[in-house]
This record gives sequence, C-alpha cells and structure tokens, in this order.
Amino acid sequence: MFLVLDGRGELRSQVLRSLKRAVFDGRLPAGSKLPSTRQLAHELGVSRNTVIAAYADLCAEQLADSRMGSGTYVTGAVPPRERRRFSGSVEPQSRYAARLRTLAPISLARRDEALRLDLQYGEPMVDIGFFSHWRRALSYAALHTQPRAVAAQGLPALRREVALHLRRRRGLDCDADDVIITHGTQQAISLVARVLLDEHDVVALEDPHYQLADRALRAQGAQLQHVPVDADGLDPRALPLPGLKLLYVTPSHQFPSGRVMSAPRRLELIALAKRHGFWIFEDDYDGEFSFESRHLPALCSLDGNGRVIYAGSFTKTLLPSIRLGYVVAPATLRQDLVRAKMLADMSCSAIEQTAVSRLLCSGVYDRHLRKTSLELRRRRRALIDGLHTHCGDLLHIEDSGGGMHVIGWLPGFNDRQVDRLIATATTRGLGLHPVKPHFARPVRTPGLLLGFAALSVTQLKSATALLGACLQHVAELTSPASMVNCG
Amino acid sequence: MFLVLDGRGELRSQVLRSLKRAVFDGRLPAGSKLPSTRQLAHELGVSRNTVIAAYADLCAEQLADSRMGSGTYVTGAVPPRERRRFSGSVEPQSRYAARLRTLAPISLARRDEALRLDLQYGEPMVDIGFFSHWRRALSYAALHTQPRAVAAQGLPALRREVALHLRRRRGLDCDADDVIITHGTQQAISLVARVLLDEHDVVALEDPHYQLADRALRAQGAQLQHVPVDADGLDPRALPLPGLKLLYVTPSHQFPSGRVMSAPRRLELIALAKRHGFWIFEDDYDGEFSFESRHLPALCSLDGNGRVIYAGSFTKTLLPSIRLGYVVAPATLRQDLVRAKMLADMSCSAIEQTAVSRLLCSGVYDRHLRKTSLELRRRRRALIDGLHTHCGDLLHIEDSGGGMHVIGWLPGFNDRQVDRLIATATTRGLGLHPVKPHFARPVRTPGLLLGFAALSVTQLKSATALLGACLQHVAELTSPASMVNCG
Repeated sequence: MFLVLDGRGELRSQVLRSLKRAVFDGRLPAGSKLPSTRQLAHELGVSRNTVIAAYADLCAEQLADSRMGSGTYVTGAVPPRERRRFSGSVEPQSRYAARLRTLAPISLARRDEALRLDLQYGEPMVDIGFFSHWRRALSYAALHTQPRAVAAQGLPALRREVALHLRRRRGLDCDADDVIITHGTQQAISLVARVLLDEHDVVALEDPHYQLADRALRAQGAQLQHVPVDADGLDPRALPLPGLKLLYVTPSHQFPSGRVMSAPRRLELIALAKRHGFWIFEDDYDGEFSFESRHLPALCSLDGNGRVIYAGSFTKTLLPSIRLGYVVAPATLRQDLVRAKMLADMSCSAIEQTAVSRLLCSGVYDRHLRKTSLELRRRRRALIDGLHTHCGDLLHIEDSGGGMHVIGWLPGFNDRQVDRLIATATTRGLGLHPVKPHFARPVRTPGLLLGFAALSVTQLKSATALLGACLQHVAELTSPASMVNCG
Repeated sequence: MFLVLDGRGELRSQVLRSLKRAVFDGRLPAGSKLPSTRQLAHELGVSRNTVIAAYADLCAEQLADSRMGSGTYVTGAVPPRERRRFSGSVEPQSRYAARLRTLAPISLARRDEALRLDLQYGEPMVDIGFFSHWRRALSYAALHTQPRAVAAQGLPALRREVALHLRRRRGLDCDADDVIITHGTQQAISLVARVLLDEHDVVALEDPHYQLADRALRAQGAQLQHVPVDADGLDPRALPLPGLKLLYVTPSHQFPSGRVMSAPRRLELIALAKRHGFWIFEDDYDGEFSFESRHLPALCSLDGNGRVIYAGSFTKTLLPSIRLGYVVAPATLRQDLVRAKMLADMSCSAIEQTAVSRLLCSGVYDRHLRKTSLELRRRRRALIDGLHTHCGDLLHIEDSGGGMHVIGWLPGFNDRQVDRLIATATTRGLGLHPVKPHFARPVRTPGLLLGFAALSVTQLKSATALLGACLQHVAELTSPASMVNCG
C-alpha cells in the first residue's frame, strides 16, 4: 500500500498518523474501504493487533466507520486536503505585523562559541559563588511557592523587596504598591508603549540607543525622533517640542555611549516634561553599576509631577536568563499598566519571583551587587589599561563611569577597515562588535562596543593584546594617507 | 528644624532623603544655607558623622555645594516641587488604554481563604508526589541552565519535547521549529491579536467564553461577535461570515460549557476557514483531560491550509504558577509571532523552560498526566454522584466529557435566589461561583460553575451535601409558585 511510517513514537500512533495523512491527502477518499487489517499488517511489517488498534483509533476520531462483517470505511465528512504543510507566505495581517516586517534586524548579543575571547556586550559575568546562592533560592522557591497564579502586579513579597531596594539604592520614594513586576525591561517598554502610545505619536529616543527599545516603539507605530547625546547625556534642546508624547532615556549610563546624565540636566528634563506634558521612560538598566562616583539620583526620584516611569531589571544584575524586572509608575498610570500586564500574560513566573525575592530579603542580592561591582571595576580597569598599552593612538576610549562596556572609537579607520579588523580578529579567535548598529544617524567615526563583563582580568589582557595586534595589522595594510583621510 | 526621618533603612540615607524632600518641597530653597552639621545632628538625635555623610551625599548628587569655611548651600539649579506624590488621574493616553478602562471586570479564580470548601474553577489540583518531581526538575535546571538569555522562540530542548508530545497526544504534525514558547495561553492570545488584528477587525468568540480572551481581544480593538454553542460545540451557522478575521475556539472542551466539538463540526470549521479566509485560534486549554471518550483530533491536526493557530499550556496540566505555554502556528505567521514575542519580553524564563523540558523528556510529565487524569475522573465522579444524591432535581448537570469543572444549571431559581444561595453557602464555608459572568448574552437559566480539581473525593462529598442543604434552604424560603415561574 501507500502508507509510510514516520518512525516517531509508538507503532500504533505511527500507523494512525499515516492513515490520517492518506485520508486528508485524498489518497484514501471519503467512502473508500480500508485494506484488511491482516493485509496492512503484512505490508507495513507490524503486528495485526497494532493495525486493529490504529483502525479503532481512526474510528474513535470519527474519520472512519467500521461496518460489521464488511470492513472499515473512510467517513463521508472528510474533505481531501491539498497538502499538510502549507508553505508560501501571507500578507501582513495587521498594521502591527506590517511594521514588524519592516523593522531593521537587531544585533543581539549571541556569543560565537568558536571564539576564544569575545568582547560581546550583554554576555553575563558568571560568578560561581552566586550560582550556589541562586540554586538555594530556587530550592527554597520550589518548596515555598504557592501553586496558584500570582497577581498580575507581581508577588507582594518581591514588590516589597524591590521597593526597599529602590528606596535605599536609587533614592525612589516608593513602596510595594508602586511596583509592578514585569518580564524584564523589554516588557516594561512594551506595556508602556501600549498604554501611552497611539500610532503616529511622537517618541524621542537617545542616539545612540538601545535597539530593542527602538524596535518595540516602532512596532507600536510611534514616530521616532532620535536625539543626540552630549557629555551631559541627552541634549534637551534637540527634543521635538512641542508635540512630544514620550521620551525614552537611560540617564544612569547612557546606552551605549556610557555617559551619565548630569544632575542639572536631569532637573531640566523633569521641568520640561512638566511644562510640555510629555512622559519619561527612565531605563535604569545598569544604574547599579556606577564605579567612578556616587550614584546620581534616578530621574524618577526627582519627579514631583508624576511624569516619570522608572524601569529596572534583574537581567543585568543577576543573570540574563532571569527574565524579571520592575516598573515604578506614577499612580495615575498604574492601573492601566497592571491591566495591560494581565492581558499580556496574566503574571510573571511565581518560582522566579519567589527565588529573587529570597535573594533580596536575605541580603544575598546586595552582597552580590557589591561583589559584582568590584569585579566589574577590576575588569574595566584591565580592559582600559590593556587598550592604552596595546592600541595606543589607534583607539580612543570613550570615558564612562560605569556599566559593563566601553566604546573604543577608531578615528583613523573607515568602515571597510573596521570590517577587515573584525574579520581579522575573528580568525584569531577574538570577537569584536561595531558600535554602528546602535546609531540611527550616520556615525562619522567608526567604533567598537567593547563588553568586558564576561571576561576575566587575564582574558581581558590577552584580548586587548590581540586587539592591538589586529589593529596594527589592519593599519599597516592601508597607506598612512588613507588612514588620515578616513577619520 | 523641619526634617522628619522616615525610619526606613540606614540613618544616613534617612537624613539624605529628608534633606532632599525639603529641597524639592521648597522648604530649603535654592541658594539657602543648610544648618550646621552639629545643630542638625542634635535636632535629629543622630551622630554628627551621619549628618556629615548625608551632606556629602547631597553634594555628590549635585543638589548642594560645600563652600570651605562657610557651610553647605542648596544649589541654584533645583526647582521646588509641588508635591512628591502626584495623585489624581489622567485621561487615558492611548486608544488601547481607553479600551482597557472600559473593559468589564474579570472574575478571576481567587480562592477565599476563609472558605472551608471552595468549588472555584481554576484552583489547582495539588499532588504532593508531583512537587518532589518539580523540585528535582528545578534543581536540575538551576545546575544546567545557561546563564545567557534564551532565543525568543524558546529553548530548543523544550520546543522539541513539546512537538513530540503534541504529535503523540494531540495528533499534530509538527516539529521543534513549529513551536513557539509563550508565557501561557494568555500571551499566545495577546501575540496573535497583535499580529492578526487591527482595530475594528471582526473576531468571533464562543458564548459562553473565557473572559480573559474576550478582554484581550477587546483591548486590541477587535469587534467581538459572540457565537452560541450547541451540543456539537460552536455553531458555525452563527459565524459572522463573510468579514470574519479570527475565530477563537475551545474545541476540546468548550469553556465553560464543557462541550466537545464533534469531528464533522471540526471539519466544517476548517472548510469554512479556508473558504472565507479567516484564522482560527484553537485554545486547547484542557485537551489533555478528556475522560469519557478518546481524544478527538485537535483542529490544528486537521488543517491543511495553514489557518489554525494552536495554543496549549502547562498552567492547567502542571501548576497555575507555571507561566509557560506553547503555540504551533502556520509557517506563514511564525516569523511575525516570534518577532512580536521578542519585542514583548525577549523570551521566557530559562529556568522554567529547562525544568519543564526535563519533566517532559524524563517521562514524568506523561505519568503525571495519566495520574492526574485518573484522579480528576474520580473527583468528577464524586462531584456528580454527590450532586445527584443531594441536589436532586434542583440542579441539572451539564454533561461534559472532561476538564476540571461542570456546570450545574438551576432551572427553578432566579438570579436573586442564586445570589441568596451563594451568600448562604458562603456563611456555611462553601464557595460557589455563578456561570453568568462567562456569558456575553443574557442567560435564561442561572447556573453554577463547579470546579472540582482542588478538592479531594471526601471534600467533594461534603461540598455537595452542603450545596444540597443550601439549595433546599433557599428553595424553601421562596414559594413554589415563584420557583416555577423563574425557570
């Protein structure tokens, strides 16, 4: 016969599947008689009982009838199907889908396993000591998590701990009721976009910027305006005023320039938001890791008019695999956001919320932050020292007070040379990543986004030495004249 | 002085916060001199070092300047703030938010802890044996989960296991590439709504229906049409054709009527979807728990034209606290959905995905399903027997082949009597829940949605006896005449 078994799972269900395929393909048309069980068993090389069982299943699914003494027949109701796997494409089915399809691709942190050393931003700093704490917190959570779903706003114990933490470390005057737990900052952006934005609303974003924020806001239909960043952070004079609905900003450590927004600039933004009635989304993505100076107060802690939505995340401070973050929103928006969260996915994982709240209330989180900060500072120092030693004048380091990356500008290189540099480095086992995809406008000087969190001090020494050698190699391949002209 | 410490956390930060509040309130205006550290320490009853440290913090935050030999002054840049906590309300900021605010409230499963016995649907069946498996799976996950973020489509190992499971148990012809991991069915609905629907698109939904689907689709701006359900499931003759964009349907076990869609009805829907070009969202929310007859094939397994989006969830089969589900979408929509998922929250929790995939591949999940099915069948039997014994003709049981609840109709009662019944039951420690909120149209006969998953056989015996007594009590309070008229 024409039946082919696919070799997956039990024989009985293999036979059933192949029969169904034949029915839907039209190879066994409506009303046709199935082969005898004995014959099919012989043809397929399976036991007769298996075929009998499969026929019974087909009848139970009302795709065939067994007529006593006559045999088994395909029922009349079954239309032949063209093909099981519909391929081809469809037009975008909504304006949202249409926008999704036009979005520029996102350069996501994806480590190339073949590379010995990768200066990829977004790679986690792996701390063995932390893993044992995390394991214990998960065991605790497995024992103590309620089996029922958590409230959409988040686990009360976690909201309480987050509020305490934000009061202590980020100067926010908030309590548990003000906190909404989200699946990371990405969900915070996406919920805020839905609650605040209609299509064509004007949204301002720093340039350079965080790509996933740009894409999420574009997908929502926002009209994006990129605003340049100067030494004090986002330049408020370049804001599209009036008419601005929402400003997305990373004041603690501008992504990816690393600049910290000055206090007067923060106050200016707050005043502008009040005067022009726009909202501010403060992405405090690594506000916890500021090395050079004391933390400046979060924008949200300065806001007396309920215009700032503050978002933070455990993704950067704990592990990228932990998809938990938090939003502190003005009371006027809270209900909208909680409802949007409920309709988006009901609530966040109870297990992860319980485990993370355990880390916070036991003090492990604070100790982890201190330890991580110290180690990140050490690694940053190693990277910067290495760059000074090995790359000399070819690479200019953008000064920044914290975080997990620095930008290295290559004033003497053009884009083609940077491509060659990256290719050369790759062949030598070093992963390098251009800063260009993070800019909306053309960048005059090419540069590299150098993530240092995932590499040890020793690895960073090797990586910078290797980078220096690659830079020299590419610089020597090109004439001094061309190097000067491309700056 | 006018500073008040809030008693939360370190003294130093308490002093800092109270100083900042005074600065932003205008009680310490720009340019004003702060009291001497000695004086403030005395007034607040804290050590002078604490005040010195808080002043230094204020200076570090650029809110004050220390002038050698003269004292510390509030900087000029600080504008006074009206009030820290902005209260009041704002207009909805987007059409989405406006719709959110008009949505009818959702009767969510929230157990009343004061009730001894609660026939609440959505309460989990707690199996002690399963918890130890779940704990082991979480420990495994804590050890084996990669620290980096998972791909937006989901953990490959989990997608593989889900595909295997769906092939085996639900007849789907899918593999790992076809599966997208979501935060439960709720996220599946919300992603599909975004990818498929513009405002005013026509969406059909069963009546009665699952409230959170109704609300999510309304929030998206869909024009909802409720379609009645007959003995064979959703009635296709009542579909708003042509012009229908999406049909949301629960064929395995209609929620909450419990009816199972017949095979010819399934084939008819598939044919209609092809002819009229609408999409079908198949919510297979408890397709795993069918007791009376063999599973009918999922709609998706019959679909040869790529019109069915299949969604399932571990929330019902494992624990409500596990926010993981899966979507099998036609290849034509997959990329749109994966992108929408990435912009929504990047990906699902790696820990939960690893733990659940462990349960699947070790066979624990299948054993758990079998065990749960048996126990649910026992509990359902106990409920139905109890209802027959104790409630007699006052309560008619809606026949249904599976799931975790049945509907009990009260043909002799009016709405007021049902309210009285529920109130009486509550005072006696029994939680009852009307079926009415699950209907869009007026319901002629009132009824109760009786969830049985969370109660043991013994508890169900007591619950049904109690329900019978309450029914008798309320029936006796009213005259026989009124009881007949209200049917």
